[in-house]
Amino acid sequence: MDKINIREKFSSFSDRWSPKVIAEMNDYQFKIVKIEGEFVWHEHEDTDEAFIVIEGGMRIEFEDGTVELGEGEMYIVPKGVRHKPCADSECKVMLIEPRGVVNTGDAESELTAPNDDWV
Amino acid sequence: MDKINIREKFSSFSDRWSPKVIAEMNDYQFKIVKIEGEFVWHEHEDTDEAFIVIEGGMRIEFEDGTVELGEGEMYIVPKGVRHKPCADSECKVMLIEPRGVVNTGDAESELTAPNDDWV
Repeated sequence: MDKINIREKFSSFSDRWSPKVIAEMNDYQFKIVKIEGEFVWHEHEDTDEAFIVIEGGMRIEFEDGTVELGEGEMYIVPKGVRHKPCADSECKVMLIEPRGVVNTGDAESELTAPNDDWV
Repeated sequence: MDKINIREKFSSFSDRWSPKVIAEMNDYQFKIVKIEGEFVWHEHEDTDEAFIVIEGGMRIEFEDGTVELGEGEMYIVPKGVRHKPCADSECKVMLIEPRGVVNTGDAESELTAPNDDWV
């Protein structure tokens, strides 16, 4: 395989809230996504989900509080915990999670994105 | 859990080639490590291994070539592939791999580091 430049991969798409796969490790995927505005409340019943902010800032709202993340910060959302990612302006994020995880979890909506979309 | 600032976590230790765990996601761990010089040739029989360069530059030597990685670049070493990480000057790296992976894989040596060492 070739090495992957994470920031360069972001230049190949412009849509938001639609994660793109950039690498696989065993049955896990590394995905990058541009976010802006508010996502939907949802949870992933079967898996934790890792967020790493590559550029910009975002927050993850929980039922009992909010985590603010800046560039170079990461957070693991535990499985089964309802959360809503948000960003006031465009934020570039890397997600790590098992292959097959749907972005909106249990909350299918117009924001539900295709899976296994590589860039 | 608290959010994790990846670069700040590097300031809490100075030893090299000894990965420190900063987060867990399911049965996977995020580890950070400072490297300089040449590691040992080894392989991980049962798992792929993700390298992400946080600061500096490194290379991963393989039996049939070398990959050079700079800041913000990543590479997945496939399971069972012999490799030797190297860095001409100190490089800060994040590794993602299943809990329990030993840094020297099949090649136990004086560089074999303790497992599950959190910072």
